[in-house]
Amino acid sequence: MEWREQDPANCSIGRTLELVGRPWALVVLREVFRGLHRFDEIQRHIGISPAVLSRSLSALVADGLLERRPYHEAGQRVRHEYWLTTAGGELFPVLAALKAWGDRHLADPPGPATVHRHRGCGAPTVVALRCDHGHVLDSFGDITVEPGPGAVRLRETESRRPFLRQGPEPR
Amino acid sequence: MEWREQDPANCSIGRTLELVGRPWALVVLREVFRGLHRFDEIQRHIGISPAVLSRSLSALVADGLLERRPYHEAGQRVRHEYWLTTAGGELFPVLAALKAWGDRHLADPPGPATVHRHRGCGAPTVVALRCDHGHVLDSFGDITVEPGPGAVRLRETESRRPFLRQGPEPR
Repeated sequence: MEWREQDPANCSIGRTLELVGRPWALVVLREVFRGLHRFDEIQRHIGISPAVLSRSLSALVADGLLERRPYHEAGQRVRHEYWLTTAGGELFPVLAALKAWGDRHLADPPGPATVHRHRGCGAPTVVALRCDHGHVLDSFGDITVEPGPGAVRLRETESRRPFLRQGPEPR
Repeated sequence: MEWREQDPANCSIGRTLELVGRPWALVVLREVFRGLHRFDEIQRHIGISPAVLSRSLSALVADGLLERRPYHEAGQRVRHEYWLTTAGGELFPVLAALKAWGDRHLADPPGPATVHRHRGCGAPTVVALRCDHGHVLDSFGDITVEPGPGAVRLRETESRRPFLRQGPEPR
């Protein structure tokens, strides 16, 4: 079955993008990965409107990527911090891959704004593609793609229905 | 310098998302990675409107991720195929990381819709985090993040300006 014959709704890339492809989602997750957990500190740091941040955080919680944890400061009502769930934390390779590409192509002349290091030995980290036999892959050219156990044949009647729940938005 | 003190505009994740965080960008790139190069076949497969696809392709070309190559069919005017540039091809780890997460969390019960294999030996491929000393990292917990050579201190006057060129869009 060629890719053009497979139902694109049944694709792990598209499904993940339904969650993290929303505006600001990955930027908000980045803030939480970097240790900002409170609404005000995230909002102040990235400078988006409270309404937009609130929607983004609510969606990330509803999707199980972040969880709310209550905290209480003297004289104030209970507020919430946002922490990564296990599933949310497993998105780190997505952010690491975005960072690696940006470091290579979009960094300012002095270099990247942040450096990731292995906690154990201090060496810089990289995102690598390898196979289960331990070979390191240099590029997409080293990979073949074949239909998996969940492959679904595209039915022509469905072929013109957009598959992402969020519709395309005008730019 | 803590992350909250760093200018978030100077972040490789955010900058890469300015290109690939646009609606449909990564889905369109996926189609090209999977061998669909012509407007009509991409449009038919993912089922988005021609206007939306045209805008997405134009942006990807303008950003240097795709390039147009002319082709000619008898009796028709010259048309163009869309092929990955070198920089575009280097985004493969981003797609591979999105796929890995989706395979784990969002695949249908039978399993993933596609399987990536090493062309050389046929073994399934994985996205791995490792350090320059060769250690394999299991999670974000194995990583420390520090300011890099391009780190820029956030100026308070800029702290409320959204840094992505595309504005947040209502959901």
